Amino acid sequence: MGRPSAKERRPYNSDAILDVAVRVFLERGYDGASLDDVARAAGITKASVYYHVSSKEELLERGVGRAFDALDAVLQEPAARRGPSLARLRHIIRRTIEITVAMLPEVALLLRVRGNTRAERRIVERRREFDHRVARFFAAAQRAHELRSDLDARLATRLLFGMLNSVSEWYRPEGELDAAGIARAVFVIVFEGIESAATRRLENLPKG
Amino acid sequence: MGRPSAKERRPYNSDAILDVAVRVFLERGYDGASLDDVARAAGITKASVYYHVSSKEELLERGVGRAFDALDAVLQEPAARRGPSLARLRHIIRRTIEITVAMLPEVALLLRVRGNTRAERRIVERRREFDHRVARFFAAAQRAHELRSDLDARLATRLLFGMLNSVSEWYRPEGELDAAGIARAVFVIVFEGIESAATRRLENLPKG
Repeated sequence: MGRPSAKERRPYNSDAILDVAVRVFLERGYDGASLDDVARAAGITKASVYYHVSSKEELLERGVGRAFDALDAVLQEPAARRGPSLARLRHIIRRTIEITVAMLPEVALLLRVRGNTRAERRIVERRREFDHRVARFFAAAQRAHELRSDLDARLATRLLFGMLNSVSEWYRPEGELDAAGIARAVFVIVFEGIESAATRRLENLPKG
Repeated sequence: MGRPSAKERRPYNSDAILDVAVRVFLERGYDGASLDDVARAAGITKASVYYHVSSKEELLERGVGRAFDALDAVLQEPAARRGPSLARLRHIIRRTIEITVAMLPEVALLLRVRGNTRAERRIVERRREFDHRVARFFAAAQRAHELRSDLDARLATRLLFGMLNSVSEWYRPEGELDAAGIARAVFVIVFEGIESAATRRLENLPKG
């Protein structure tokens, strides 16, 4: 594949450059990728990239910001704020999966950031703040006796979000699975457990 | 910190170089790290590195191989091969967490590999084979009516191992949490579910 000629180039706006940048950062790793790589992948000059953004850091923060804004917004949705905790947690889980599937590259990039530049540290910090908000929510649901109290809220939310976050690594949009199907499986595993009813009866253990 | 003088250098063997290489690959990303970086971090010359290994690829494969060998061995342990499926699955989960905690850098590196060199593709392929073996095990437990049959085995094992794999990203050895504590929480979430008994009675839904 050659470089597109000036004529073939589609008009680039800031959003389209961001799409390319997120893809390049995912492919090469943020550390390994340069603004030159982004410009080359977009088929435009580095000067054109600079017309829209001032630095590689800005591309990272704005790319990852798309996913953050969507995920933060979930916690503000009425279904995440009102009603029984369990229904709210289900809503948060379902919406997190929907966003992961809909913004796969942005979410994957967000979760892979762990570097030491200021931009990366800010992202890690924002991720941590999100985790803390969910852990506080989990703890409140435990105090309301809606979730088991014999789990550490921080550990449980880390494990739960470990499960949800993994979707960004293995999900393939071209497959048959959709967000609703993933959510159903997560609900079964996390709210009901994977043991069959037969096994449960055999074990004769009180659950919950 | 300056480079250690010849006198200060501790004798380097292949294993010690591997320790350093795994750390350097984690810090800089495999793509971004060079054999020069490994030599510098070890405080030895590149020629000394070449005395022990022939390439960066070999360092990656041997580093990641430590974790693979340990994880593969779990599936061969008697407790993973004999007895009720559920007990075997519990054993696999517990041992996976123990290995993750004991070989944190190797497991983290193993899970982050997703590149396009031949060495990386071989690792991705070996990881996939491991996943398939666990999914086949899960499906067998479903056929034996020990695990719920209304879950897709491949999806369920992906989600379950997404949870387990996340440990390598958030676990801190200096903290109070140990492998046994993590395993207990995973067992509660995955085998029993996080709903409180009170909620379950209220919902009055048949489980399992």
